[in-house]
Amino acid sequence: MRISQLSERTGVSVATIKYYTREGLLPAGEHVGYNSTDYGEDHVERLRLIRALIESGGLSIAAARRVIAALNDSDVPLPEVFGVAQGAVPREVSVPSETALDAVREVMDERGWVTVPENPGIPLAASVIDDLTRIGHTELIDQLPRYAEAIDLIAAVDLDAVAASGDDERQAETVVVGTVLGDTLLAGLRRIAQEAHTRHRYDNDDADDGTEDEATS
Amino acid sequence: MRISQLSERTGVSVATIKYYTREGLLPAGEHVGYNSTDYGEDHVERLRLIRALIESGGLSIAAARRVIAALNDSDVPLPEVFGVAQGAVPREVSVPSETALDAVREVMDERGWVTVPENPGIPLAASVIDDLTRIGHTELIDQLPRYAEAIDLIAAVDLDAVAASGDDERQAETVVVGTVLGDTLLAGLRRIAQEAHTRHRYDNDDADDGTEDEATS
Repeated sequence: MRISQLSERTGVSVATIKYYTREGLLPAGEHVGYNSTDYGEDHVERLRLIRALIESGGLSIAAARRVIAALNDSDVPLPEVFGVAQGAVPREVSVPSETALDAVREVMDERGWVTVPENPGIPLAASVIDDLTRIGHTELIDQLPRYAEAIDLIAAVDLDAVAASGDDERQAETVVVGTVLGDTLLAGLRRIAQEAHTRHRYDNDDADDGTEDEATS
Repeated sequence: MRISQLSERTGVSVATIKYYTREGLLPAGEHVGYNSTDYGEDHVERLRLIRALIESGGLSIAAARRVIAALNDSDVPLPEVFGVAQGAVPREVSVPSETALDAVREVMDERGWVTVPENPGIPLAASVIDDLTRIGHTELIDQLPRYAEAIDLIAAVDLDAVAASGDDERQAETVVVGTVLGDTLLAGLRRIAQEAHTRHRYDNDDADDGTEDEATS
């Protein structure tokens, strides 16, 4: 198909398609004559993926390029694809304290989680622990073991989704998509569940009986 | 204390303190004489909270102002504080399709989650479902019920932390902090757990036996 059709199919403007190609995110189309280039279904799929990573996942062009390169290289093993995808998600992290890092390591030991020391989740979680300590909200830190227990379930689901997604190439793509877009999906579900739980516990305006469990201090 | 001491105690520059005061985030100090203003411990605490919300939570000044206003008003009930905090976290959301919204509502019914129709988590989760559908990664959508099950646990922990945090004012603050910083904490733990699970399933390089469960297609 022509670049104009590719644009129509994907909702990405011709200028942006050309930009992604120049930036090495999208393979060039096949030259089929003077001033004419042919694009295939692979381009449609790749372009939709790029768009999801950048627009919904908030990845920078440079981060998307690293992720796409890992996907293009079939020699990159799956655990490493996770690492690349995790490192690509934009997160500003301050340098965490040793105390906070110890708190994270304690939870990891408790759950039997083994990772490389460079796992980006460690400073990310530790920096939040520092924030919570600084503002005196340790009641959230006290719940770390229970949060970790729930996250264990989520990671198991993440891996099951990867395993169910087909051949190696597809699996790598699921890793990237699940990591980059998964946080947002989970944040959305958490907002829904928080309101549902809060209503259940605190909102007695429309309660038809007095048997709801109360959780006030 | 003087503004210079307040700055030292909190690591926030004098110029930024003045800016936050002008923007209505921080109450003004008490004038105790010509060109001299006195600040108390309340200012230290509030300033640390503002800094965590803006710098770690990524809230805009306007969003932080809405959140602080909800905290300052003791008439705002806790479920509403959740709503304000959830609405303050910056998320770009495209308008989701009806199909995606139905998928979210189905999960909500399954889990017995009741919310107002305007809960910000609904379009947030639905827009990710649209993205996943568009790029053909429905294996992640297939896992929605299991993700929701894990999120149910997380919301229960969220509410337990709120209940454990003290009087009404403290509880409202825990709601805000847990919502704004909690996503990042959970994202950090998820990255750690993902690597741990991936190693367990796929990485046999340093396995000392052959009994690990394999999850390849």
